Amino acid sequence: MPVIERLTATVEQEMAQVEKLLLSSIVSEVDMLRAICTHILGSGGKRLRPLLLLLSARVCDYSGRDQITLACALEYLHTATLLHDDVIDHADIRRGAAAAHVLWGNQATILAGDYLFAKALSLAGSVGDLKVIQVFADISICLSEAELLQIARCGDLSLSENDYFQIIRNKTASLLGAAVMIGGMISGASREELDALHAYGTNLGMAFQIVDDVLDYRSNQQEFGKTIGKDICEGSLTLPVILTLKECIPDDRECLCALLSDSTLRTQRLDDILALIDRYGGTRRALEVAERFAREAADSLDVFSGRENVWILSELAQYVVRRRS
Amino acid sequence: MPVIERLTATVEQEMAQVEKLLLSSIVSEVDMLRAICTHILGSGGKRLRPLLLLLSARVCDYSGRDQITLACALEYLHTATLLHDDVIDHADIRRGAAAAHVLWGNQATILAGDYLFAKALSLAGSVGDLKVIQVFADISICLSEAELLQIARCGDLSLSENDYFQIIRNKTASLLGAAVMIGGMISGASREELDALHAYGTNLGMAFQIVDDVLDYRSNQQEFGKTIGKDICEGSLTLPVILTLKECIPDDRECLCALLSDSTLRTQRLDDILALIDRYGGTRRALEVAERFAREAADSLDVFSGRENVWILSELAQYVVRRRS
Repeated sequence: MPVIERLTATVEQEMAQVEKLLLSSIVSEVDMLRAICTHILGSGGKRLRPLLLLLSARVCDYSGRDQITLACALEYLHTATLLHDDVIDHADIRRGAAAAHVLWGNQATILAGDYLFAKALSLAGSVGDLKVIQVFADISICLSEAELLQIARCGDLSLSENDYFQIIRNKTASLLGAAVMIGGMISGASREELDALHAYGTNLGMAFQIVDDVLDYRSNQQEFGKTIGKDICEGSLTLPVILTLKECIPDDRECLCALLSDSTLRTQRLDDILALIDRYGGTRRALEVAERFAREAADSLDVFSGRENVWILSELAQYVVRRRS
Repeated sequence: MPVIERLTATVEQEMAQVEKLLLSSIVSEVDMLRAICTHILGSGGKRLRPLLLLLSARVCDYSGRDQITLACALEYLHTATLLHDDVIDHADIRRGAAAAHVLWGNQATILAGDYLFAKALSLAGSVGDLKVIQVFADISICLSEAELLQIARCGDLSLSENDYFQIIRNKTASLLGAAVMIGGMISGASREELDALHAYGTNLGMAFQIVDDVLDYRSNQQEFGKTIGKDICEGSLTLPVILTLKECIPDDRECLCALLSDSTLRTQRLDDILALIDRYGGTRRALEVAERFAREAADSLDVFSGRENVWILSELAQYVVRRRS
């Protein structure tokens, strides 16, 4: 059985409950709203955030209903950002299907995102834990700031590795870190354990996003459900190109900068750009960085070494950097 | 002294604190985010929602700091919807100044809206009252549903008075009702008092939105800070035109429908549309409906008849239908 399926199997029942709640909580009288939410929630996705929360709760021996509610809330929050991202990025494909804004227009898509965002906070609030609510609010702030920073720096060829890390830490790792930490919070984990879970989730999130960015260069559209080279075409600098710009000889650097700084050339000569990055091992080296973050994630789990189920999180850290879609 | 200034004066100090907090809470490291938030928060606006919360708290003899925090949270929530509305409506002017999306683009404006929305929930959460948090979450759900319903019904000439009331109840009255009710909640008001405050705020909100829609027909751009006839040009049916369609003779109805159902004619022949509505007293009759809601608002206050400061809310109900900007 593939790793991810073996991991998911440990919380299979709970994931099924989350899946059910995700659709059954959309109770609006507005037809179009239900249609948009059902479309995006029903079009698959990894459910990584719910999974992380449930796995973390499992490691902490949690037994209760709140994990289902909060896992659903996390997926709503994530989905809300996807809906807004699609409008922002003008992406036409999401999870292999037409993006919501193509089917229902930008206006309705923005509002459906607002709705899911509000639902996320409402579900989070329904559990009645003020600390959990504050985590949701803080993460929401963090996500919007990160996306804005990414837009502000879009096309900026001086973006450093550290700038990139800051963006993905806030954009992705913060939410994954929160997912893992919330699993501990509802289980009554100690401060030390919560810090460990947060460090685990955050490092896992860094690895996950770097791999995601690498897959934008390597994966094929059918397998990954996204258009290839989208980041490059849109002028968004991710780790493979940042590492290439840092390492390459002046002539290549000049050539690469010329191509990247022209929005027409970025698309027309995408193959040349990819070939250059490939020549300097840009994606391979980016994956090495991802592996480093994954190892740090696994190392954070020392405090749980006596726990029966901690292998779940260790294996997940390995999976995240090995996945190919 | 004009009514509104006399009312505002009763909570002048508190409003000044809200005003300060509105700007000082925007602490992001992302320059563009601070710029957008400062622009829209600094460009005036009535601060009706903070004002309602503070006045309600005053009537309930509240003394504490939470009112400032929550008033600020309400204004953030409202401002978040304004930012998204501007993108959605393609409105170029907001509060007499250039709309945020004209200056910073749609992408950044959507994200700044997300940010303010998250800040609203974060501030609301910081007060530590689960019931108040749930009100914020519920209202946020309500607002997005209402805007979506409005879009779904845009250009639909069969929109009835009741459909219109449903839209504005969710779009505007819900938030104003919540503002007034929260003032009571933090003051420890009884269930009966909370219901009265909610009824007051909701009816006031209905009156307020109807007047707002009437002003779209009547006000001039300089005074109101908005473009005239915007709703008509965009195919959004509001009360003056709904009442006219209901009352007018078949020939006029046919003519009006022909003009309203064509997006080019709506703009080109705006004057003819306005003249027809005027002939049937559409705006005058809409204002009468607004007055009815305002009276209902005032009547809801009976339970507070012994309170020293209840005159504030009564006078506000009168002001809302008399304002001309």
